Amino acid sequence: MNLLEALNWRYATKRMTGKKVSRETVDRILDAAQLAPSSAGLQPYNIILVENEELRKKIQAVAFNQPQIVEASHLLIFAAWNDVTEKEVSEYINRMAAERNIPVESLSYLNGSLMNLVNNKTQEEKYQWTARQAYIAFGIAIAAATEGVDATPMEGFNPAALDELLGLKEKGLRSVTILTLGYRDTENDLLHTAKKIRRPKEHMVLEMS
Amino acid sequence: MNLLEALNWRYATKRMTGKKVSRETVDRILDAAQLAPSSAGLQPYNIILVENEELRKKIQAVAFNQPQIVEASHLLIFAAWNDVTEKEVSEYINRMAAERNIPVESLSYLNGSLMNLVNNKTQEEKYQWTARQAYIAFGIAIAAATEGVDATPMEGFNPAALDELLGLKEKGLRSVTILTLGYRDTENDLLHTAKKIRRPKEHMVLEMS
Repeated sequence: MNLLEALNWRYATKRMTGKKVSRETVDRILDAAQLAPSSAGLQPYNIILVENEELRKKIQAVAFNQPQIVEASHLLIFAAWNDVTEKEVSEYINRMAAERNIPVESLSYLNGSLMNLVNNKTQEEKYQWTARQAYIAFGIAIAAATEGVDATPMEGFNPAALDELLGLKEKGLRSVTILTLGYRDTENDLLHTAKKIRRPKEHMVLEMS
Repeated sequence: MNLLEALNWRYATKRMTGKKVSRETVDRILDAAQLAPSSAGLQPYNIILVENEELRKKIQAVAFNQPQIVEASHLLIFAAWNDVTEKEVSEYINRMAAERNIPVESLSYLNGSLMNLVNNKTQEEKYQWTARQAYIAFGIAIAAATEGVDATPMEGFNPAALDELLGLKEKGLRSVTILTLGYRDTENDLLHTAKKIRRPKEHMVLEMS
């Protein structure tokens, strides 16, 4: 399947069979997310990987009891950094200097630009910005997953309750969205045959000149 | 190239050759974005396609004069809906009824749920939510583009000035991010050989059980 075929094949799977997705496939999806671009390259988010069934039952309780949470094989919880400070910018600059084998001093201009970018935002603006970066990785993870795995994007959960359950606040993280990975249960999920609904392309795409 | 190879090959191309991307390829990228999932399926954003050189020069002026704006072949400007109201929800419900050939009355529960979802958000929350949905399509467009085309994600522009230039406010839209499509100029863009910088996977992915 090429990407367009895969995107046509996928749908928001609500019922899954419980069949396990191989670790190799999960890693391939995570590798794609890891390669996602982000503003200034900062990757200001984490991905929480959950396979454990007991933990997934607890997560289901703060996600409107949606069945795919426990019927999936794995959950990827995308969690945006609540803040970006000099610490995270320095780590990024130091990593770039080390990886590219250049003196860290040669990156002082970049360091200053990034600190300006960050300091010009309020706390809330920083969070909205980091959340958007997480959504780029989320989109790319969906693209990577659709080659044979069902991946259901979910915003239908209580983020504050999930953060509490997973201790994310203490890690400076805020959950923003979930991707469940598994396999569709075609007997119990009638939506798999439903026609995909999309806005006509001429409504979505506006050509300007 | 599979997706992982493509994501490794891509980088934030700052200098492009001006060579045109075929309309067929642009359409393939737009088709992928069109198939992106979104919260409740609403697709609350538009994509502005710009090829015209004069218009791109004007856009460059509100985008820190970055060269890829004019050296690219096409720009995709992702613009989130400023608001979601009963009108957009009704259009979606009517489209679903028509496409799936079911009576619109059978969707009254879904209609109610969607209106609840929308009405529970403030204006600002609705905009942040629609922007995130646009970023899913943005991520998927990047995945689709990387099969041979250089695609540079750009937040480095003045959104208010761009909205003014393109008359987006009158259309109920707010520009959130740009994807430039073109071909790397390897003579003038030394970054194409620079090592990709990414956080170690074990920092990015947190396994919880």
